Amino acid sequence: MTLHWKLTTTDGAARAGTLMTAHGEVPTPVFMPVGTAGTVKAMTADAVRSTGARMVLGNTYHLMLRPGAERVARLGGLHRMMDWHGPILTDSGGFQVMSLNDLRKMDADGVTFRSHVDGSYHRLTPERSVEIQRLLGADVTMCFDECTPFPATPDQAAESMRLSMRWAARSREAFVPREGHGLFGIVQGSIYDELRAESAAALTSIGFEGYAVGGLAVGEGQAEMLRVLDVTLPLLPAAAPRYLMGVGTPSDLIGAVRRGIDMFDCVIPTRSGRTGRAYTSRGVLNMRNARHAEDPSALDPECDCPTCRRHSRAYLHHLFKAEEMLGPILLTWHNLRYYQSVMERLRGAIVEGRFEAEAAAIEAGWAEGEAERKAA
Amino acid sequence: MTLHWKLTTTDGAARAGTLMTAHGEVPTPVFMPVGTAGTVKAMTADAVRSTGARMVLGNTYHLMLRPGAERVARLGGLHRMMDWHGPILTDSGGFQVMSLNDLRKMDADGVTFRSHVDGSYHRLTPERSVEIQRLLGADVTMCFDECTPFPATPDQAAESMRLSMRWAARSREAFVPREGHGLFGIVQGSIYDELRAESAAALTSIGFEGYAVGGLAVGEGQAEMLRVLDVTLPLLPAAAPRYLMGVGTPSDLIGAVRRGIDMFDCVIPTRSGRTGRAYTSRGVLNMRNARHAEDPSALDPECDCPTCRRHSRAYLHHLFKAEEMLGPILLTWHNLRYYQSVMERLRGAIVEGRFEAEAAAIEAGWAEGEAERKAA
Repeated sequence: MTLHWKLTTTDGAARAGTLMTAHGEVPTPVFMPVGTAGTVKAMTADAVRSTGARMVLGNTYHLMLRPGAERVARLGGLHRMMDWHGPILTDSGGFQVMSLNDLRKMDADGVTFRSHVDGSYHRLTPERSVEIQRLLGADVTMCFDECTPFPATPDQAAESMRLSMRWAARSREAFVPREGHGLFGIVQGSIYDELRAESAAALTSIGFEGYAVGGLAVGEGQAEMLRVLDVTLPLLPAAAPRYLMGVGTPSDLIGAVRRGIDMFDCVIPTRSGRTGRAYTSRGVLNMRNARHAEDPSALDPECDCPTCRRHSRAYLHHLFKAEEMLGPILLTWHNLRYYQSVMERLRGAIVEGRFEAEAAAIEAGWAEGEAERKAA
Repeated sequence: MTLHWKLTTTDGAARAGTLMTAHGEVPTPVFMPVGTAGTVKAMTADAVRSTGARMVLGNTYHLMLRPGAERVARLGGLHRMMDWHGPILTDSGGFQVMSLNDLRKMDADGVTFRSHVDGSYHRLTPERSVEIQRLLGADVTMCFDECTPFPATPDQAAESMRLSMRWAARSREAFVPREGHGLFGIVQGSIYDELRAESAAALTSIGFEGYAVGGLAVGEGQAEMLRVLDVTLPLLPAAAPRYLMGVGTPSDLIGAVRRGIDMFDCVIPTRSGRTGRAYTSRGVLNMRNARHAEDPSALDPECDCPTCRRHSRAYLHHLFKAEEMLGPILLTWHNLRYYQSVMERLRGAIVEGRFEAEAAAIEAGWAEGEAERKAA
């Protein structure tokens, strides 16, 4: 009556494995596209599948406000509603309550806030967050926590982390075990090693099906983020999956996989795709840039997505200049495919014991592309 | 060195045929989705193909301003740029010059106007319009004409129509014959029978590969539009395809096919799809309406599109309320599929000699749906 993760191979600290959920198996490391309000923005579910994505994230905060968790449940759950038949991880709502709400009131029991949609009042507690995630039908449920703001003093970070640990225990109590479904704890503690250690100890003593590292990618910078992973990951059970929340760029993914992270989610590929930024095997390109206006070449000649196989950079440039929806559609599609292809390359390399060589090859492609663009 | 259309069957005045172009054959009657600026809005080319669409329309006015006809030609033409490998019909630019430009100056030779994109000055003449359409790679080129405003006095309509007829002769001169490519003349004359007859006579004496009826669906109403078709179509060569420009609702399509129209284009299915209006076998639904919020049923149970096969009305309602791009994507997809399915049903019925029965069945479905919604 739980969620299993099977370790296949390690290569240094990097891990290849398989997450076994009620909605199928997912090879890890895995990148989960973000389906905020029941849709990965600008993509049909078929399109998301075609990028190689095997698991997506849904946002408790957005879905509880609209269309509402009980309504989603009446409609057969989130999988059915959005036509996504693979596993879904839902966040707890805590992060968005903090980041999207000016009018919130926190107490030891939970948070009261006003909807950004219609101004109505809502309350989230560990128990309600876990209930909402069950109503949505999440394969992986996240503990309700407070994402500690950055920067925070050691005292602030400690107080916030300890609140999250009490809420983690309540989330564990509230979670109804079901086969193929699991609850993940979230390590907090900001950039303070002792607090991260205290948080990891608190969570492992409660016991979760997986462990997330939260409170990162909030302004501390990549070096500090990776340092926190160096300190934190050895303190987590080797037999459980590890999830780095809200991260990141392809470079972040490599650094985190290298240290033993198995799961990621991030809006970067989708959000960037909507604004014209493309992540490619030759680095980052902005399709709004006039240099692409007459360029008949593919966005990324190494990519097998429909955008790269069928269209020119000039066409993508045109679509963004003309503000056609197809621009965001095609670029989101590409970015998601590129992210999946990076994860596939990293996983394959871990299995074959050549992670560092593959990571170096990927990074060399970005550097070469950057150098070519500067020289042009 | 021309464009061929083959008549298969008639059923009353309704005709089933095949248009043979440089980019393949198209069964007629055909509805062409509008790909204004090199994209059928909100749809990938694959998605457009999957609706059953065989031919699309491109807009000379939009494409000449952005990305520019010469640029499209350098990029391999419009087919390649937008990944559409079936035939493309381009309009002449005349209609948009009139409808989108306040700062235009017309003379006997052509029109000078300012770009709505960047304020730059441009000029369209019959010769330049035909040249642009060749640069775009159009399978069907339209004569440059003035779409007579509605209402117009008989004198205004006559003057405007006669200008268009002189421009039609110049368009014919400018057109370079190529196998599988053709030039269509456009009958004008507003709602005046004698002017329509004069225009039809002028065009048939020049000779075109097809004949369009222009200047309709501009405010005259369906009954008047169909009356003009009744008067005009018998004056056009039976052996050439007939195209009703910019029309219309599904009801308009039935009325026009009944009278012998073979080709249509219209923004209604795409534009309506973006604003939440769905055309279905049970009439028109607005997905923003709260009545759909909890409705688990398919948008159109009779439809085989991905939207109807995989999603609920409640989900579509949610997507439009949340202003998610997937709402316009899914509804455009459905509307285009619905339009194609109507055309397929009408064509099949013509071939089997039961056009009127099929038209009545389609219309009965709309009426029944409307009655059910009023009763609910």
